[in-house]
Amino acid sequence: MYRSGRHFLQIPGPSTVPDRVLRAMDMPVIDHRGPDFGVLGKEVLSGIKKIFKTTGHVIIFPSSGTGAWEAAIVNVLAPGDKVLMVETGHFATLWRQMAAKFGIEVDFVAGDWRSGVDPAEIEKRLSDDKTKSIKAVMVVHNETSTGVTSRIGAVRQAIDRTGHPALLMVDSISGLASADYRHDEWKVDVTVSGSQKGLMLPPGLGFNAVSEKALDAAKANKTPRSFWDWHDMLKPNSTGYFPYTPATNLLYGLKEAMAMLQEEGLDNVFARHMRHAEACRAAVRAWGLEVLAKNPAEYSPVLTGVIMPDGHDADALRRTILENFDMSLGAGLGKVAGKVFRIGHLGHFNDLTLIGTLAGVEMGLQVANVPHQAGGVDAAMAVLTQKNQARAVA
Amino acid sequence: MYRSGRHFLQIPGPSTVPDRVLRAMDMPVIDHRGPDFGVLGKEVLSGIKKIFKTTGHVIIFPSSGTGAWEAAIVNVLAPGDKVLMVETGHFATLWRQMAAKFGIEVDFVAGDWRSGVDPAEIEKRLSDDKTKSIKAVMVVHNETSTGVTSRIGAVRQAIDRTGHPALLMVDSISGLASADYRHDEWKVDVTVSGSQKGLMLPPGLGFNAVSEKALDAAKANKTPRSFWDWHDMLKPNSTGYFPYTPATNLLYGLKEAMAMLQEEGLDNVFARHMRHAEACRAAVRAWGLEVLAKNPAEYSPVLTGVIMPDGHDADALRRTILENFDMSLGAGLGKVAGKVFRIGHLGHFNDLTLIGTLAGVEMGLQVANVPHQAGGVDAAMAVLTQKNQARAVA
Amino acid sequence: MYRSGRHFLQIPGPSTVPDRVLRAMDMPVIDHRGPDFGVLGKEVLSGIKKIFKTTGHVIIFPSSGTGAWEAAIVNVLAPGDKVLMVETGHFATLWRQMAAKFGIEVDFVAGDWRSGVDPAEIEKRLSDDKTKSIKAVMVVHNETSTGVTSRIGAVRQAIDRTGHPALLMVDSISGLASADYRHDEWKVDVTVSGSQKGLMLPPGLGFNAVSEKALDAAKANKTPRSFWDWHDMLKPNSTGYFPYTPATNLLYGLKEAMAMLQEEGLDNVFARHMRHAEACRAAVRAWGLEVLAKNPAEYSPVLTGVIMPDGHDADALRRTILENFDMSLGAGLGKVAGKVFRIGHLGHFNDLTLIGTLAGVEMGLQVANVPHQAGGVDAAMAVLTQKNQARAVA
Amino acid sequence: MYRSGRHFLQIPGPSTVPDRVLRAMDMPVIDHRGPDFGVLGKEVLSGIKKIFKTTGHVIIFPSSGTGAWEAAIVNVLAPGDKVLMVETGHFATLWRQMAAKFGIEVDFVAGDWRSGVDPAEIEKRLSDDKTKSIKAVMVVHNETSTGVTSRIGAVRQAIDRTGHPALLMVDSISGLASADYRHDEWKVDVTVSGSQKGLMLPPGLGFNAVSEKALDAAKANKTPRSFWDWHDMLKPNSTGYFPYTPATNLLYGLKEAMAMLQEEGLDNVFARHMRHAEACRAAVRAWGLEVLAKNPAEYSPVLTGVIMPDGHDADALRRTILENFDMSLGAGLGKVAGKVFRIGHLGHFNDLTLIGTLAGVEMGLQVANVPHQAGGVDAAMAVLTQKNQARAVA
Repeated sequence: MYRSGRHFLQIPGPSTVPDRVLRAMDMPVIDHRGPDFGVLGKEVLSGIKKIFKTTGHVIIFPSSGTGAWEAAIVNVLAPGDKVLMVETGHFATLWRQMAAKFGIEVDFVAGDWRSGVDPAEIEKRLSDDKTKSIKAVMVVHNETSTGVTSRIGAVRQAIDRTGHPALLMVDSISGLASADYRHDEWKVDVTVSGSQKGLMLPPGLGFNAVSEKALDAAKANKTPRSFWDWHDMLKPNSTGYFPYTPATNLLYGLKEAMAMLQEEGLDNVFARHMRHAEACRAAVRAWGLEVLAKNPAEYSPVLTGVIMPDGHDADALRRTILENFDMSLGAGLGKVAGKVFRIGHLGHFNDLTLIGTLAGVEMGLQVANVPHQAGGVDAAMAVLTQKNQARAVA
Repeated sequence: MYRSGRHFLQIPGPSTVPDRVLRAMDMPVIDHRGPDFGVLGKEVLSGIKKIFKTTGHVIIFPSSGTGAWEAAIVNVLAPGDKVLMVETGHFATLWRQMAAKFGIEVDFVAGDWRSGVDPAEIEKRLSDDKTKSIKAVMVVHNETSTGVTSRIGAVRQAIDRTGHPALLMVDSISGLASADYRHDEWKVDVTVSGSQKGLMLPPGLGFNAVSEKALDAAKANKTPRSFWDWHDMLKPNSTGYFPYTPATNLLYGLKEAMAMLQEEGLDNVFARHMRHAEACRAAVRAWGLEVLAKNPAEYSPVLTGVIMPDGHDADALRRTILENFDMSLGAGLGKVAGKVFRIGHLGHFNDLTLIGTLAGVEMGLQVANVPHQAGGVDAAMAVLTQKNQARAVA
Repeated sequence: MYRSGRHFLQIPGPSTVPDRVLRAMDMPVIDHRGPDFGVLGKEVLSGIKKIFKTTGHVIIFPSSGTGAWEAAIVNVLAPGDKVLMVETGHFATLWRQMAAKFGIEVDFVAGDWRSGVDPAEIEKRLSDDKTKSIKAVMVVHNETSTGVTSRIGAVRQAIDRTGHPALLMVDSISGLASADYRHDEWKVDVTVSGSQKGLMLPPGLGFNAVSEKALDAAKANKTPRSFWDWHDMLKPNSTGYFPYTPATNLLYGLKEAMAMLQEEGLDNVFARHMRHAEACRAAVRAWGLEVLAKNPAEYSPVLTGVIMPDGHDADALRRTILENFDMSLGAGLGKVAGKVFRIGHLGHFNDLTLIGTLAGVEMGLQVANVPHQAGGVDAAMAVLTQKNQARAVA
Repeated sequence: MYRSGRHFLQIPGPSTVPDRVLRAMDMPVIDHRGPDFGVLGKEVLSGIKKIFKTTGHVIIFPSSGTGAWEAAIVNVLAPGDKVLMVETGHFATLWRQMAAKFGIEVDFVAGDWRSGVDPAEIEKRLSDDKTKSIKAVMVVHNETSTGVTSRIGAVRQAIDRTGHPALLMVDSISGLASADYRHDEWKVDVTVSGSQKGLMLPPGLGFNAVSEKALDAAKANKTPRSFWDWHDMLKPNSTGYFPYTPATNLLYGLKEAMAMLQEEGLDNVFARHMRHAEACRAAVRAWGLEVLAKNPAEYSPVLTGVIMPDGHDADALRRTILENFDMSLGAGLGKVAGKVFRIGHLGHFNDLTLIGTLAGVEMGLQVANVPHQAGGVDAAMAVLTQKNQARAVA
C-alpha cells in the first residue's frame, strides 16, 4: 500500500542507508581482477582497520553477519573444543547454537537478558579452568536483542588477571561504528561484524578482524573450510584482491560510508549515539515504561529495549505503529518475544528523526491504548536542548 | 560541514523529492524525436490534466514557475492591457512587478499579507469597470509567502455575478497537488504552476493549464514571444513531442510522481495536507505564537506562516534551527522579512516527519530564547491521534 | 518494447549522460536560499567560466538552449533592430525565425547548408553598412543540423577589419565543451549554449556568456523582459544565488560534469572529438557516401552529417537502424529532411562506442539495401589505430 | 585515470548491470521482518524458480557463487564420500579443490580444458561403480574459464542408462539465464548459481536449486553446517523470510532483473546469446585465431575463449586493450594463463556492443603486433545481418 513520506526504519539494523552510500553503490561493476579493483580493494581493506581500531587484518566476506560468526568459528575452533559464552540475549543464544552445530562444547553462562557480560564471572570460570581447556571466550559486544552493551575492556582485564590463554572472540555486529570499540587496545582476537548497522550499508558484508594469535590458531585448526578461510583471503588481500568474486558494489558503498564516518569523526559518532540513547531513555521513563537494560554502565548507544506493561503485546503495538505511523520498530526476540520492543537510534540519524521516532511510539501507545503517561517526547526534547548540546546563533 | 542523518527540508518548496521520483529521473536521456519519447510525451501530457482537473490543454515548459508566470502574461496580455491583481503577499507582488515590466497596467488591490483574495472586492471592481477594460483577474491560489489559500471557486462566482468577460488567471505554483484545485470547474483560464511543490519534483518544469478562451486570446495577442508560445507548443504536443528540447529526465520524474499521486488518491492527498496543517497550527498556538493567516477558511494546507514575538528576529531563529537541528524553514519575504517564518508541510510527507519538524521549531525557540510556551509538539500529536485518524490493530 | 543492452544514443545531442553525472543529480534538493546553496552556486557560476574561456559573466537559466537564444535576443535587441545572420542550416534558420518574431530585421546571408559562415561575406556586409545600423552579427558556431563548424575566430577578425561596432552573438549550443571555443579571445559578446551536448547533462539548462559591451547594450535596451533579464540575474549571482528557483539538481550535475571535463582536460576533450570525427568521416567515405560538410576546415568534431544516395530515404534508414540495432541517429532537419542523417560522436564517448555506432550504420545500410560499399568500420579502425594514437603495453 | 565514455566490461562475469537493476537496488532498505519484506521474499523466491525451470526449491544465499558451491557440498556430502567430477577447466578444478578441503574423495576425469563433460565417460565410470559408492556426479554446465558448455541433458541420460543412484550436481554459475538450462527436466539434484552473470546483478547472491532427493540427502547428512543449511532456510522461506539478514537490496535488483528476463522471454535471451557467440566466433576465425572450445556442440553462448598465437602473451594483449580501448577481457586462468583470453558476451548486451567489443580486440591485436588477419569485425557484422536476423523498415 502506498504511504506518503519516508518510512521510519527504526529497527536496530539494518539501519538507514545514506543517499551518498546508496548512490556510491549505484555504479557499474568493475573487473574484480583489473587494476582499478586493486586500488579500491586496498583502500577499503586499509580503511576498515581504522573503524575496528586495529593495525592487524580485517577480512571482508560477501555474506551477512551470521556468516561472519560462522567464519570466526570454523577458522579457530574444532569439534570438541570447549568455549565460554554468556547468555546476554537472543543473538548470544544464536551464536551458541551455531557453535553447537559445529560440535563446539559451550559453557554458557546463564543471563537475564537485561545485563551484559559479567567480567567477574568470566574471571572466575577461567580461573577454575585449571587445565586451560577453554579455547575461547565468545561474547557479544552490543546485544541487539536487548540494548545492553557489554564492557569488553573489562572482560579483557578479567581474562588478563587469570593469565588464561583463551582467545577473546567478540560479536560487535551492531556495536561497530556506533559504540566505542577497540580491537587492538582490548586485545580482541576475533571481532565479528556486519555492514548493515553502524556502517550504514545494506546487508551483504561480513567482517572478521583477527589478531596474530587468532591467525596462528587458524593455521593449526583442522576444521574443514574454504569460503570462510582467513588464510586463503589474506594472500590476495595483500594486493587488494579477493580469492573469489567480491560484492563489488557494497565495497563502493563501504568506501563512501567510511569517508562519512571520518568526516564526522568516530568520537563524534559515538557521542551522538550516546546522546540520542539518553534522550530515548528519558522518553521511555517519562512514559512510565521500563528500559530493558538494567545497568546504566551497559546502556546501549545503539538501541533501547523497552518492556511492555503486563498484559500488553509488544507486537500488537508495533503493528499499530507501523499501520498508523509508517515506522518499523524491533520486535522482542526469543524469550522476550511479545514482551519487549526495541527502538533503533543508530547510524545515519539525527535529533529530529529521533523525535519523530519517539513521537511514533508515544502516539502508538496512545492509539493502541497501552497504559502510559504522556510527556516522553517532551522529556527527550529537554535532553536534546541541554545547554551544552545546542547553541543560539548570534 | 558534515551532518549525520537526513536534512529536514521544511521550506514551502522545493519540497522533498521521493526516492522513487529521483530514481525515475536517474535514467539515460532518450531521443526527444524518437518513438519512445512520443509515448512518454503523450503519457505525461495526458496525466497532468488529471492533476489540474481539466480536460483542456496543459503546457509544460522546461523552466521554473517564474517562467510559467511570464508565459501566462506574454501569451494573453499586451502592453497597455489593464488587469486586476490582489496583494495577497510577496509572490502576488512579484507577479505584479513582472506584469508591469511587460507594460501591463495593474489595478492592485491592497492587502495585509494575512488574507486571501476577497471575492466581494473582485466583484465590486469588475462591476465598476463599465467599459469592460479589465482584461484579466490575476490571483494567487496558495500564497507561498504567507500560508493563505484564496478561495478561487468563490472568486469565480464573484466574476460570474458581474458577467464581466475578464480572463481568470491563477498562480497555483504551491497549491497544485497539495490543495484542492479545479481548473475546469472553476472556469480558470490560465493556471500557472511548477514542479517543485506538490508535484514532488526538483525545480525545472513550469506549467500553464489553458482554457479555450485563453487560447483564443493568445491567438489574437500580438505580444512578441517564441519560447513561451502556447500555440507553437500545442501542435507537436498533439503527438507527444515538443517544439524544442524538453527536460526529458524531469518528465520521467513527472510520470512517476503522478503515479504516486494516483496511488494515494488526490482526495487523500488533500486530506493529508489539511490534517498536517491543522496539527501544525495547533502547535503554533500552543507555543503562544500567532498564525499569520487570519481567516480559518483560508488556512493553507501547504505551509503555515508564523509571526515572531516582537523584538525577535525570525531569521536568527531559522539560523539557530539550521545549525542545531539541520532543518531549513522558509524565511519571511518582502515586507514581512524577519518578522515571519514559514513551515512547509507539503508533498512527500507524513506524521512523524511533521512531528520532527515541529520539534525542531520548539527546540529552536528554546535554544534561541524566543519567548514561548512548551507543548506545541504535544498539541500536534493530540491532533494526529484523534480517534478518526488512527486505529489500533486488533 | 524491451531491448537488451544499452541503447546507442547517437543523435547530436542530448548526448549520453555519464553515470557520475546522473548520480550527482540523484540527490535531495536543498534550500535554494540556504548557505549550502550559496556555496554550490558560486562553484558552478565560477566553474562554467572556464568552459566558455571567459573571465566575464555566464548566466545560467533553468531552460533549454532555445530559451537561451531568446534570452540573448530580448536582452540586447529591440523591435526594428537590424542584425546580420547566416543561413548555415536549420538551427540558424530557427534562430532567425525567433529574431523575426521579436521584430528584429534580419539580413540573412543565404547558404547551402554545407558550409559555415564566410568571414569575407561578413566583412563585406559590415563594410557596406555605412550607417553602422547593424546591431549584431548572429552566427552558429557548430551547426547541429549539418555538422559544419564555423570559424568564429576568423569571423571576429573579419568584423575587426571593418571597425564595425556590431555585437558578435554566437550560438555554441552543440559546440561548447566539444569543439574549441574561446569567448574572450574571440571577443564574442553573447555566447548561447545548453546543457545537453558537450556538457553531458540532461536538457534543462541554458547559458548566456556575456561581455561588458553586451551588458551595456542590455542596460540600454527597452525590450520588455523579466525571466531572461541578465541584470536581474547578476545581482543575486554575485553571492551564489538566483532571482527565482533554480534547477538545483541540474546544477549538481553541472558541477560533476565540469569536474570530469577538467579531469580529462579541455584540450584532450577537443582532440578526442576531432579524432572520432576523423574516424567517422573515414567510414562515410569508405561506404561511398558523402559527408555533408564541404570544407575540411569546417568539419564538425561533434557530429557528421551524411548524404543519402539519391532515391533513398534517410528516415527509413534511421528506422531500420533503430529497430534492428537499437541506435538513434539524428534526422535531416528542415530542407534536408529525408536526404541526410547525422551521426553524433560527442560528449561522454570513446573508441569502441564509436565503432559500435559506425557498425550500426554499416549494418543498417546493408539491411535497408542502401547502395554502399563495405569497409567503413574497417576504415574507422584504421584511423583509431594509427601509430600516434595507440600504444602497445610492454 | 579518467577515461571518457563507458568502460566495456567484457569479462565473462560480473556482467554489465542494467540501469533498471542498479536503480531498483538504489532504494532504502526495509525491515527484513516486516510485512513488506514477506511480499518481496515470496516474489523473488517464486520468480527464481522459473529461471531455473524448477517447481522445487531454490535457496538464495547472501554470498558469492563460491559460497553456493560450498553450500552444495556441505549439505549433501560428508568427509570420505566419493564423487565423480570432470576436469573441464579452471572452475571445475577449483570446485574439486573445495570438495577435497571438505574431505570428499574425488574421482577427477582428466580433461584438455577444451571439451565439456563426456557423457560416455560418465556412463562408463558409473557402470564400473558396482558398489554404488559414488555419491554424486559434479559437473560444470558452462565452464567460464574456457567457453565450453557441457550437455547436461546428455549427462543425465548417461546416468539414467546406468541406473546409478548418484546425485547430479551442476555448477551453472555462468550458464543460468544465458544458456538453456532445465533443472527439473534434466533431473538435476543441486544446481549452483550466482547473481553476477546472466542474472545481470552485481555479485552478492548465491543460489542452490535443490531436488527432493537432494533435500533428503541433506537431512541424512551429518556434515556440520549452519549458514549454508538448506533446511534452516526452507522454513522461513515458506512465508517469504530468511533465517538471518538477507541482502535486501540485491533482492530488489533480482526482482527487476527477472522482470526484464521475462519481458524479453527466456528463449529469446538464449537465442540472443547464441547469435552473439556465433558472430564472435566468426570474428575469431577471420583473425586466423583459434576458438578454445573444440566441439561445436559445446560452444558456449556466454563467452568465447581464444587461443593466442604461440609466443604471444594473452595478458599483454589484454593490458594493451585495456589501456588503449578501455575494455576488460577475461584472462586465461590456471593452466591456460597467458595463453588464452576470454570474451564475455553475456547478460545485458546487444549487437552494437558486441561489435564495439570485437573492434577492441581487433584493434588491440593490431596495436600489440599480434599476428592476425583483419576482417574479424566484418565477419561478425555479416553474421549479424543475415537475412533472418534483421529486417528493413518499409
